[in-house]
Amino acid sequence: MKLVGVSGALAGNKTSQAIYDVLAAARHLDQSIETELVDLKDYDISFATGAPVPYYNDDTWKVVDKIMAADCLVFGTPIYQASISGALKNLLDHFPEHAFKYKVTGIVATGWSEKHFLVTEYQLKPVLSYLKGLVPTGNVFIQNDAFDIESGELVDDRVVKRLQSLADEVLFWQKNINERRKG
Amino acid sequence: MKLVGVSGALAGNKTSQAIYDVLAAARHLDQSIETELVDLKDYDISFATGAPVPYYNDDTWKVVDKIMAADCLVFGTPIYQASISGALKNLLDHFPEHAFKYKVTGIVATGWSEKHFLVTEYQLKPVLSYLKGLVPTGNVFIQNDAFDIESGELVDDRVVKRLQSLADEVLFWQKNINERRKG
Amino acid sequence: MKLVGVSGALAGNKTSQAIYDVLAAARHLDQSIETELVDLKDYDISFATGAPVPYYNDDTWKVVDKIMAADCLVFGTPIYQASISGALKNLLDHFPEHAFKYKVTGIVATGWSEKHFLVTEYQLKPVLSYLKGLVPTGNVFIQNDAFDIESGELVDDRVVKRLQSLADEVLFWQKNINERRKG
Amino acid sequence: MKLVGVSGALAGNKTSQAIYDVLAAARHLDQSIETELVDLKDYDISFATGAPVPYYNDDTWKVVDKIMAADCLVFGTPIYQASISGALKNLLDHFPEHAFKYKVTGIVATGWSEKHFLVTEYQLKPVLSYLKGLVPTGNVFIQNDAFDIESGELVDDRVVKRLQSLADEVLFWQKNINERRKG
Repeated sequence: MKLVGVSGALAGNKTSQAIYDVLAAARHLDQSIETELVDLKDYDISFATGAPVPYYNDDTWKVVDKIMAADCLVFGTPIYQASISGALKNLLDHFPEHAFKYKVTGIVATGWSEKHFLVTEYQLKPVLSYLKGLVPTGNVFIQNDAFDIESGELVDDRVVKRLQSLADEVLFWQKNINERRKG
Repeated sequence: MKLVGVSGALAGNKTSQAIYDVLAAARHLDQSIETELVDLKDYDISFATGAPVPYYNDDTWKVVDKIMAADCLVFGTPIYQASISGALKNLLDHFPEHAFKYKVTGIVATGWSEKHFLVTEYQLKPVLSYLKGLVPTGNVFIQNDAFDIESGELVDDRVVKRLQSLADEVLFWQKNINERRKG
Repeated sequence: MKLVGVSGALAGNKTSQAIYDVLAAARHLDQSIETELVDLKDYDISFATGAPVPYYNDDTWKVVDKIMAADCLVFGTPIYQASISGALKNLLDHFPEHAFKYKVTGIVATGWSEKHFLVTEYQLKPVLSYLKGLVPTGNVFIQNDAFDIESGELVDDRVVKRLQSLADEVLFWQKNINERRKG
Repeated sequence: MKLVGVSGALAGNKTSQAIYDVLAAARHLDQSIETELVDLKDYDISFATGAPVPYYNDDTWKVVDKIMAADCLVFGTPIYQASISGALKNLLDHFPEHAFKYKVTGIVATGWSEKHFLVTEYQLKPVLSYLKGLVPTGNVFIQNDAFDIESGELVDDRVVKRLQSLADEVLFWQKNINERRKG
């Protein structure tokens, strides 16, 4: 079973660190889980123009393929303008209808202010639901001060636990989906 | 007074046509209004990385400047994945806090299905509100079959009237704002 | 295992009919499932005033208890003012934090216009998520013309199938939750 | 010109206090403004059943009439279950389509946690917009600790200023609407 984490921030390391931690927690829970972190900072994704995927550059291909091939997904986004990043929204624009059917799609957001706690509920969850992903109950919002300024690591234990619970929940639902589809 | 229309579709001509029609209606209502259509298809906008605007390419600069210099704005978006286009969201990520304060910011959306009628209410209006734009009451959703397939023109008179009302409303609020700020 | 359906319409029979059909489909899928339809038309629910449940009238007690005792839930709402009914929102106001933890909470909506297709996504799902319910991927919006005017029954086969799939999905997730919690 | 404030909380005094303060600020800005506070605690509003208003009790009649007769409105809501109060939603269910056309409809919310800052943006603004109210740019969220525990008064000056700005904005837009409609 493969869990792919997508970090939708082109600036800073908080979002990718948080996604990295979810993936590590998943491997810790079940050593048979394969994980991969797709950090959008490392790829040159084309803007979606409505053309089919083959018309886009190699990086776009590669990232779309990795996500389609994953069993389950965790999307990380920074909060920009009280919404998700345009870079992440553009990536999601590349997928066909129902692309996330039979996939669990977890959410992690990082932002400066608790005022934006509900952003993913209204700006990202409806998009994942449109693509037919199952969104877990334990999505995680992380205020930026939960990260250590120097090391960049998460130093708030409650947040660390919430990321572990999210990993656990994603794996649990996905295993049930996979078993049923095999059966 | 200047009204800038932004078309956030990188594919097709429906969204830009609709924005064009709002601008034409505005000039018809008041010949002193200057208008400009910023069609994102014509610009190579950088992805927002959190860097200040001067670090981006010339097109990004130019478009951000045009929008900041406008008195009022109309944003057009296609519906992708039950949300606005990633290209438009990315453009909006380039603006500073409160960028649209004292600006009226109208909305036009084009989509295949009436099921997505509420997309702009939940996916675009909150972003414009975060940037402090005044969102009019008469935003317009256009189903794609309101356009003539061959000419690409709007052939549904009710839609044409709604676009005219939107132009009227945008100009009305903006004139009141401008007068008060002069006074 | 018990599935409780809640119909949040105080007028008409469309919403309760749709919920009735989900419950029947669930019993058809698994004859060991117990079901109950809580039709808010049959109960005199108090307005939530912030007082603890014991301060409210007997009907309020009874309905809150039925819902808390259920394994899983399906909520039906008519669309009023591009939102859920105030009667349903008021009922939901009576529950404690995390009331729906470990419960699957499905959604069915009935309305006149496809324009309101996204209402439950934005107006009901976030409330169920706040209460920690797991919201399935296959929630159902039913346009009123899917009901036969005379008999009041659902005559659109695609809708009937979607309600069956919803029943199936609710039972599937709930069984997995219950098994894990026993284990 | 008349400004009616509606307090949608059936428990506590924070929401009604905040609305009271908006009304006082409005009268201070323009002594010709008539104001009235409709506190839902003082009225026994019927649940909306789809019947026309005359079928409801006297209090429902009275409150609907007061709101329809107002030039402009400010709605106050407590945050319940990460949404507006069911009592307020039920009141709004009594209005006909486009009931708030040509009315400015401001929003004030009171809640325990900044995490719910965006609730009115997504749960109340779309309802007011559906009813065709013009929603100002300066809606106010008040965390409960901005109120003095003993006196119940607002003791956070930044909040007081935001309520004054909201009063100013509501009056400004409404005067422009009224003048145009007379003209």
